[in-house]
Amino acid sequence: MDQAMPAVEARHGRDPGRDLRRVGANPNHWYPLAWSRELKPGKPLAVRFAGDPIVLVRPKEGPVFALEDRCAHRQVPLSNGLVEGCAIRCGYHGWAYNDAGQCVDVPYLGKDKLPNGVRAYPCREVEGLVLVFPGDPALAASVPLPLLGSVADPRYKTRRFGREVGCHYSFMHENLMDMNHQFLHRKQMGNMVPRYRGGDQGEGFVEARYTFSRVGGKQPLGEAAIFGQRRPVGKPSSSAEKDLMTIRTEYPYQTLRIRTGEDAPVMDLWIAYVPVDAAQRRNRTFGLLSIKRPKIPGLLEAGWPLLVLFTERIFREDREIVEMEQAAHDAQGEDWNQEVFPVIRNLRNLLRERGGATVA
Amino acid sequence: MDQAMPAVEARHGRDPGRDLRRVGANPNHWYPLAWSRELKPGKPLAVRFAGDPIVLVRPKEGPVFALEDRCAHRQVPLSNGLVEGCAIRCGYHGWAYNDAGQCVDVPYLGKDKLPNGVRAYPCREVEGLVLVFPGDPALAASVPLPLLGSVADPRYKTRRFGREVGCHYSFMHENLMDMNHQFLHRKQMGNMVPRYRGGDQGEGFVEARYTFSRVGGKQPLGEAAIFGQRRPVGKPSSSAEKDLMTIRTEYPYQTLRIRTGEDAPVMDLWIAYVPVDAAQRRNRTFGLLSIKRPKIPGLLEAGWPLLVLFTERIFREDREIVEMEQAAHDAQGEDWNQEVFPVIRNLRNLLRERGGATVA
Amino acid sequence: MDQAMPAVEARHGRDPGRDLRRVGANPNHWYPLAWSRELKPGKPLAVRFAGDPIVLVRPKEGPVFALEDRCAHRQVPLSNGLVEGCAIRCGYHGWAYNDAGQCVDVPYLGKDKLPNGVRAYPCREVEGLVLVFPGDPALAASVPLPLLGSVADPRYKTRRFGREVGCHYSFMHENLMDMNHQFLHRKQMGNMVPRYRGGDQGEGFVEARYTFSRVGGKQPLGEAAIFGQRRPVGKPSSSAEKDLMTIRTEYPYQTLRIRTGEDAPVMDLWIAYVPVDAAQRRNRTFGLLSIKRPKIPGLLEAGWPLLVLFTERIFREDREIVEMEQAAHDAQGEDWNQEVFPVIRNLRNLLRERGGATVA
Repeated sequence: MDQAMPAVEARHGRDPGRDLRRVGANPNHWYPLAWSRELKPGKPLAVRFAGDPIVLVRPKEGPVFALEDRCAHRQVPLSNGLVEGCAIRCGYHGWAYNDAGQCVDVPYLGKDKLPNGVRAYPCREVEGLVLVFPGDPALAASVPLPLLGSVADPRYKTRRFGREVGCHYSFMHENLMDMNHQFLHRKQMGNMVPRYRGGDQGEGFVEARYTFSRVGGKQPLGEAAIFGQRRPVGKPSSSAEKDLMTIRTEYPYQTLRIRTGEDAPVMDLWIAYVPVDAAQRRNRTFGLLSIKRPKIPGLLEAGWPLLVLFTERIFREDREIVEMEQAAHDAQGEDWNQEVFPVIRNLRNLLRERGGATVA
Repeated sequence: MDQAMPAVEARHGRDPGRDLRRVGANPNHWYPLAWSRELKPGKPLAVRFAGDPIVLVRPKEGPVFALEDRCAHRQVPLSNGLVEGCAIRCGYHGWAYNDAGQCVDVPYLGKDKLPNGVRAYPCREVEGLVLVFPGDPALAASVPLPLLGSVADPRYKTRRFGREVGCHYSFMHENLMDMNHQFLHRKQMGNMVPRYRGGDQGEGFVEARYTFSRVGGKQPLGEAAIFGQRRPVGKPSSSAEKDLMTIRTEYPYQTLRIRTGEDAPVMDLWIAYVPVDAAQRRNRTFGLLSIKRPKIPGLLEAGWPLLVLFTERIFREDREIVEMEQAAHDAQGEDWNQEVFPVIRNLRNLLRERGGATVA
Repeated sequence: MDQAMPAVEARHGRDPGRDLRRVGANPNHWYPLAWSRELKPGKPLAVRFAGDPIVLVRPKEGPVFALEDRCAHRQVPLSNGLVEGCAIRCGYHGWAYNDAGQCVDVPYLGKDKLPNGVRAYPCREVEGLVLVFPGDPALAASVPLPLLGSVADPRYKTRRFGREVGCHYSFMHENLMDMNHQFLHRKQMGNMVPRYRGGDQGEGFVEARYTFSRVGGKQPLGEAAIFGQRRPVGKPSSSAEKDLMTIRTEYPYQTLRIRTGEDAPVMDLWIAYVPVDAAQRRNRTFGLLSIKRPKIPGLLEAGWPLLVLFTERIFREDREIVEMEQAAHDAQGEDWNQEVFPVIRNLRNLLRERGGATVA
């Protein structure tokens, strides 16, 4: 990988251009704001995109919808109110709004005098995710919904995971794409040495490919559950060495696939990082981790608890380190990142170019 | 009430003029800063008015007094010190101040060399309230003490209640005066429909009058305790419909009275909202709820615990909703209120006109 | 002491010049940043000087060293990493740094392409203190290490104490030097009346001398442990009256010595106040309290628990009051201090003149 590194002068400079950690997520995409299972019929759910309060509503009948989470009257959250048919009624003075955000009732006012309502957001429900389009609604129809990996493929079993992480979403993309951070997971994974096998970039995406060799430690059982087999401690020419990991940021989503030689990947991860607060210093992660079922029935189910434990531990280590990065950025007040890996420099440029407005 | 509503254009605009939530309470009035029972002889009590620290002192003999709660020397709170006779002595180096705020002793300094003291506030104790005049002391003598409703009338029993609420005092006034917020209390009160019966306004006050009819649910026992009788589920022509509720903001205080036909009200509430912090985003509420004793002796006492429970629940619902309003204002950074009820628009103008300086 | 006081006009004015509470500690001195016992071999320790994160490292062999606590790559704390030989390796992607802060290894990069490293701080270990020079490293060799009182003298037993205090370091200096604050400790010490016996000032120091007479209360046992004897309730001419206490700020350190007539002090305190956060509104106190061993062997050891308890109580009272001073300054936004004691005015000038840059 050494050969790919730029000359010394270029390496030591900090990135020019606007501070990546202040680049807002581009709102003109579909973002998951909740898991379907979190949104109960008749119980409004308060969520946020980049500080904007949004209420998700699942009526007793009909599709879910999303509105600004405030009553036009006194600004209290509609999520504190009641679902009535296909409308939501504020819990304070009883103003009601339909799924287009129109005010359809004020109990003490004639129907001809109803005031303005609130903003409605385009909303779709796919594969257990409630997706919202927080940007210009006129663009929603022309922006495709995300491809969610192998989640719909019956040959796979999918784990839905994620939680709020206290950092800008860009740290998440960089964390996953730079596999040299295997060092962070040395206690969970043993001493795995990544080898960069080249990358790719194009309209709206950056991709990196790696192989790995184990130079110490034992293969964790959780990892074995992913591959459906135990692996020996790696020699450079071992079969593990030929497993190819492909990580791709296809703005604003990220995927990670592992192929062991067959066509279909043995692991297919789709992940999105949704800014929560206005400063976009927190993100909520929605991950779909699809594992190809091995030939022996029941084996994957048997190994599943181990896989869950293993991925939780990895995810916790990642969360702790990216939160340290955010804390350092907060203290330093600007991005002191000194990146030496060209793939990550490309990724950073992509996130800057595709991102939205600068945040405070 | 429909008829009273202004035309559409006017209704949808936001209020012009300065942001009501940044209008400071006018300091040139008497404000309760503590209950008498909180202020023990010889134990100084630290309180605040709009961020200004004030120490209340009840000497072993003589009237209570109020000073700036800081030593002129090193600025530590005098409330951390000792009451000695009619003076308070700082606990750090022992500087002492009399009830006029004059420095009367520095243990290591001659009496002829005593430094300047601290500010004293006009202070009165009435009906279990310690009232302070935080504005220009020269005006105190000309500003009347508040009339505290029926608290001194032996025909009434009074509950003293209140706590700190995390919002600007103006939300409190609006909450109480707009009885359409009965919808908020639907679980406590059943389905009560308010009917606006007209209002009044004049020099320093706004008043609104309502009747109510019950269209569902049962009369709560706590409410029965207030009226001294059970009421049937209301029909528009029932006796309950004739009960008249009058709510009045007489700046800076608020009252709510219920009359059932007799001259003396069956319920007489006096309430004040005192800003605590400098930004006036928190207020401490002091309420005197006077209930007319029914003819049967002991009945009110028997029902008192129910009344306490009932009013606490109502107050908690109100507190939660006004704190949501404040949180929305904090997030929105300005007042997006869209008021359709003329009485509340008048009330808002009164609070703006009578209020003090703008706060940050 | 009266005679020493300036005329009234001068006394009532507030200090001119820059706000003392915003004067940063001068970084061109040696500051203790940790106790030796806190820094274990192979376990990096994260500390701060005025907001700057510093990692202290004790290799398995060789002297301790101090670096900026951030990896040059992604800015995460090096203190989260691993000590390897005489280097520290970042826990994220494995970049390693030597004791001079040079980057000596990036696992996925050739040795000829290593990026810039991080700043190293001059560092010494003396008498159980890890001392760091946070200012211009070129000056470190010419600035003497602090003289730590009688800590190295076998005739003394030393207690190492201290903790974080939520105030600017200047409050600590003023607290200790103004012995009129004995009033604060009246519950611990009884009624001790200090008498100012003159002072001294010169290049980089201010000194004050006091005697004391007990006018009430009993001598605490902890105090007796310091003097190695019980004292009667003081009469002005008692022997206690002749004990001389000398308090000296020798920038940036402070000492307090008590002499009972012999040459060597019976008590010899050395203390430093190290700013922790960037605003320097918190300090960590490092104190060395050396007590001269009395002639009877074992007596000091027997009384030691009492001395510990006594000094902890005194220190807690001091901590509470200086944190109140800081809170008052935060609320007032500037220094309203009204000092009447010339020694303290001199001390304040010294701290202002010797201090570093103004902090926010």
